[in-house]
Amino acid sequence: MDNRPIGVFDSGLGGLSCVKEIMRIMPNENVVYFGDTGRVPYGSRSQETLMKYVRQDIRFLKTFDIKMIIIACGTASSAVLPWIGDEVNTKIAGVVEPAAKAAAAQSRTKKIGVLGTAATVRYGKYVDEIKNICPEAEVFQKACPMFVPLVENGYANSEVTKTIAREYLEELKDKDIDTLILGCTHYPLLKNEIREIMGEDVLLIDSGMTAADYALKVLKENDIQSDEADGTYKYFVSDSPGDFARLGGIFLEKPILENVEKVDIEKY
Amino acid sequence: MDNRPIGVFDSGLGGLSCVKEIMRIMPNENVVYFGDTGRVPYGSRSQETLMKYVRQDIRFLKTFDIKMIIIACGTASSAVLPWIGDEVNTKIAGVVEPAAKAAAAQSRTKKIGVLGTAATVRYGKYVDEIKNICPEAEVFQKACPMFVPLVENGYANSEVTKTIAREYLEELKDKDIDTLILGCTHYPLLKNEIREIMGEDVLLIDSGMTAADYALKVLKENDIQSDEADGTYKYFVSDSPGDFARLGGIFLEKPILENVEKVDIEKY
Repeated sequence: MDNRPIGVFDSGLGGLSCVKEIMRIMPNENVVYFGDTGRVPYGSRSQETLMKYVRQDIRFLKTFDIKMIIIACGTASSAVLPWIGDEVNTKIAGVVEPAAKAAAAQSRTKKIGVLGTAATVRYGKYVDEIKNICPEAEVFQKACPMFVPLVENGYANSEVTKTIAREYLEELKDKDIDTLILGCTHYPLLKNEIREIMGEDVLLIDSGMTAADYALKVLKENDIQSDEADGTYKYFVSDSPGDFARLGGIFLEKPILENVEKVDIEKY
Repeated sequence: MDNRPIGVFDSGLGGLSCVKEIMRIMPNENVVYFGDTGRVPYGSRSQETLMKYVRQDIRFLKTFDIKMIIIACGTASSAVLPWIGDEVNTKIAGVVEPAAKAAAAQSRTKKIGVLGTAATVRYGKYVDEIKNICPEAEVFQKACPMFVPLVENGYANSEVTKTIAREYLEELKDKDIDTLILGCTHYPLLKNEIREIMGEDVLLIDSGMTAADYALKVLKENDIQSDEADGTYKYFVSDSPGDFARLGGIFLEKPILENVEKVDIEKY
């Protein structure tokens, strides 16, 4: 047993889709969340910049006595985690491997789509992971650079988002995929639009959710689950806490009642 | 005469619409440009964060021996310049006052529209300036939070942008405005879409362009124009220089042949 918190971070709000799943499947775990809202979006940044940002995010989370880190960000998991995993010196999970495993296991046709940011698609880590598990799989990636700005600006379930989603998804519709990875933790907020375009028969894999499932497995295997009655949640952001609390409630599907604190991330 | 450079900065590419005008109307001036591409967009950030970013941007530009700073960013001009102008200790111009003056002078009906980021509209500085000059003017603001992400991601002249622009501009169409300030220096890249929706009779004021016109006036009045044969241009960014050079050419309507350098802005 280990009651130390899990550290979770993302460029902004997206990682809350992972926190939501943690609340559901391991409600007794304590969580420290950091959303880098002062430097969002990550998906359009260079690797050098991302390396620096992610190292700072991890250094901040490690000021808490955490037992595990979840990089609840498709971009950071693709463009940074493979290069820095060894230096972190704490259990660490990204979103890529768990989502790739879930997709490979659940696809019948082995035709799998991946939606991600520009950086995620450039690094192709979802494709590599799926091919590792299932070499005969056909994987089709599509960069959706506007999805994060749309979600962070509160445009989920809008006509604008539908139009943009239709444009992005058009070429995937012809590929006969039966499984589609939402490879960025912001994208579950656009599930309605994506499902409407892709149809009910395409299975959507929520990468924030599968990362939480994977983290639970790690905690169990290492016998380091929490035995507290109820988990507590701490939220930190690098810009004004107000918007985060307001929009974060939409991600969690329940209001954020805890105090959201601002942290000067450049100091880490 | 004074051959020291003019320092120009913006959150990213937008300020190049001001540089383009500098090249046209004062081709002998030297320019140092900084685009904060590692922290773009500014329009959705809080004032506290913007204060910090803009102070760093200015400190960086002041490491060059500059004679003037142009804040070629509607957000920073609205949310920061009024509070820090006095501490800068160098001639400084934002985009708000020159654009407001141009609009007040050129509008016949005195019904004026202003497009800006969320922060720009929240501070309402264009409205204040126009009302100062012309108290009877009616001013209609509209926040267009998706325009900067669209421009920075290369979506000018796309169907997606047309759809979003139509949504933003709809309510301004009923107001009978004859003049519309593009209150963010990214927006001139969307001139085609905006003109198509608003019609040929609405005069579009390019705030980057009017800021350059104003800067020339200041240089003349203080007798500090450059007497070099041809101005030189130095470009700095806070993320990868590659994308900036590529997309920057579209703003300038000519390729950026100079070396674009990356600077670690958090150190300033």
